[in-house]
Amino acid sequence: MVADETQIAPVGGDVVQAVVDAEGIVTITMLRGDSYNTMTVPLLDELLECVEWAADPGRAQAIILTGAGRAFCAGGDLNEIASPREREIRHEVTERLNRHAGVSVLLRESAVPSIAAINGACAGAGLAVACAADVRIAVEGAKFRTAFLSAGLSGDFGGSWTLPRLLGDSRARELFLLNPKFDAARAWELGLVAEVLAPELLLTRAHQIASEWVTAGPDLVTAIKANLNESGGVDFCEHLPRESERHIALSYASAPPGPRADL
Amino acid sequence: MVADETQIAPVGGDVVQAVVDAEGIVTITMLRGDSYNTMTVPLLDELLECVEWAADPGRAQAIILTGAGRAFCAGGDLNEIASPREREIRHEVTERLNRHAGVSVLLRESAVPSIAAINGACAGAGLAVACAADVRIAVEGAKFRTAFLSAGLSGDFGGSWTLPRLLGDSRARELFLLNPKFDAARAWELGLVAEVLAPELLLTRAHQIASEWVTAGPDLVTAIKANLNESGGVDFCEHLPRESERHIALSYASAPPGPRADL
Amino acid sequence: MVADETQIAPVGGDVVQAVVDAEGIVTITMLRGDSYNTMTVPLLDELLECVEWAADPGRAQAIILTGAGRAFCAGGDLNEIASPREREIRHEVTERLNRHAGVSVLLRESAVPSIAAINGACAGAGLAVACAADVRIAVEGAKFRTAFLSAGLSGDFGGSWTLPRLLGDSRARELFLLNPKFDAARAWELGLVAEVLAPELLLTRAHQIASEWVTAGPDLVTAIKANLNESGGVDFCEHLPRESERHIALSYASAPPGPRADL
Repeated sequence: MVADETQIAPVGGDVVQAVVDAEGIVTITMLRGDSYNTMTVPLLDELLECVEWAADPGRAQAIILTGAGRAFCAGGDLNEIASPREREIRHEVTERLNRHAGVSVLLRESAVPSIAAINGACAGAGLAVACAADVRIAVEGAKFRTAFLSAGLSGDFGGSWTLPRLLGDSRARELFLLNPKFDAARAWELGLVAEVLAPELLLTRAHQIASEWVTAGPDLVTAIKANLNESGGVDFCEHLPRESERHIALSYASAPPGPRADL
Repeated sequence: MVADETQIAPVGGDVVQAVVDAEGIVTITMLRGDSYNTMTVPLLDELLECVEWAADPGRAQAIILTGAGRAFCAGGDLNEIASPREREIRHEVTERLNRHAGVSVLLRESAVPSIAAINGACAGAGLAVACAADVRIAVEGAKFRTAFLSAGLSGDFGGSWTLPRLLGDSRARELFLLNPKFDAARAWELGLVAEVLAPELLLTRAHQIASEWVTAGPDLVTAIKANLNESGGVDFCEHLPRESERHIALSYASAPPGPRADL
Repeated sequence: MVADETQIAPVGGDVVQAVVDAEGIVTITMLRGDSYNTMTVPLLDELLECVEWAADPGRAQAIILTGAGRAFCAGGDLNEIASPREREIRHEVTERLNRHAGVSVLLRESAVPSIAAINGACAGAGLAVACAADVRIAVEGAKFRTAFLSAGLSGDFGGSWTLPRLLGDSRARELFLLNPKFDAARAWELGLVAEVLAPELLLTRAHQIASEWVTAGPDLVTAIKANLNESGGVDFCEHLPRESERHIALSYASAPPGPRADL
């Protein structure tokens, strides 16, 4: 799966690593597995650096985000969240969080499509980051929770923006305000994850999806993603000409396809 | 459940009653149970008065809305809707409906979080009001219907705004345009209600949810609700700084939490 | 079902036919069944002509869109999409697609409510057009696929605008980016189709729905549809007065209804 041509990207460090394969698929792995990949400042610094590097379509064709060990990411490191009170002024802490939230912005808004390969516990800011990806797949044993209510925090990394859009406002409020723990099967029922897989198949499937995107052509998934991202904020009649423009541009660019849609 | 400290609020009257407990949880009960709690002008006047009183975060921590008898609320009183033609000018009737629709506005937009505890039939304007609450839970026997198509009316109390957001536009149109009757189990499948309970457990569970919100702190659920309410109308990058600001404010305000998100 | 009073409308031609019955229900049928009703330029010209004719509430009460043969519509005719490269300038092809996309605009935004009666395969632009209708019902054997990824095209006819609204952004991205084939039962689970029927009952049920709309009165479904269409782009408080205005207008117009919502 990780073939010979796979190289370590010149970003990241001890707690987040990025590798890029011959197809341009970048796999970003959080490496604090012993601590459920909770987000410390160093982890977020390295994660942001890796995502910034990979969100460049001249460099990468797809991003896979996953975690080492038994958790995808159990959220912010609450020891660290609690500790800065004495040391830093609030303005600086807020600015740092805004900067780190660029991880979600890039996953959602960059031209490079993204997959969250959820290998285990996915909670709090970890869930919010996963919700910023274009597609989520998860292992059978993964557990999910917004977890903000129980942590005494209102939520970060854009989950309060993405979840109502992903699942509708009723279930988004349920997940935030009732704070249930739910498993991968329920996440699939909710439409939060597209597929549930055995652990040994998770990254294989993530690479297969990304590889299909690469095969489809460098501009195709970017165009589909642009359509979906733009459509949220405009009227139907405003959207259609942009959608048509992209569609026709690709019809001129692509090799002659088969006789009809392959259903 | 209704403990000794519970007091009748100085609002409401014969057909809607509000009680507030020692935690600041306000339970508003529609009392026209013999008439399925259909909304007459007096009921709506008293309901609005109760919700206005409870929607003040200096006074209340959470709102529970429920009905006495076998129905939550079967909708507008159609006799009354039909009757004013001769007596009132249309402008005044429209103004009155707009004023009464403040019930939905306050449930949705005030800082105080709200639960619709759906104790039975929930239709028409009753369903619309329930959809304005932050969370809906229902008894096993509850029946649901938009019921506007069959009543010859297009819908009021914001259901045409909330339902597409809560459930997505496809199911919202299905509920309005095919006008199906559905039960609590189906409402749960649709994501319309978060939990389905035995009748004797409904208010206990509603109070438990509200009490968890109170325990979480006066500003936490307000901040989560503000995030969710604001996120609908803004771009991702516009939303994130506000979300971060609230998150950090709470991290400075709260007692030091445990070591990690409790998954 | 197609009663004696049904007349062929003075629009359409060899590949799309419109008939109108005594109630003003217009059934538009794509007739390229041997080619899975793939969308050639002549088919789209005739389809647009038929929908433009039927989208006039002075002429029609409801639109039913369906296909002859075993497919509803398998999408754009890819031979034709590939062929114009040499013959036409790109600007003209884009303009033509924008014009044809008026089919989706009219189904979604005209005052006349619409039903996609999905009689078989529904893919690509065919799925996008179906998603623009107010209600979708399907036969048991119908197969669905966005199919754009596999066709090397980014999508047209507004699917990238409608699908996130109909189903939420998570499943919309799943359908576009993973490009799964799914059947009618799954489409119902997703909320994409409201009902799944035996083939011989599909058009009977579509006419029954449309006939209920006609019986409900000429302005009622138009008002409900206007509420749902407008609500997407405005704040709650901006929406409520418009919703109230329509509701009261109908309460003055309609015959006195029964004593309460029929639940």
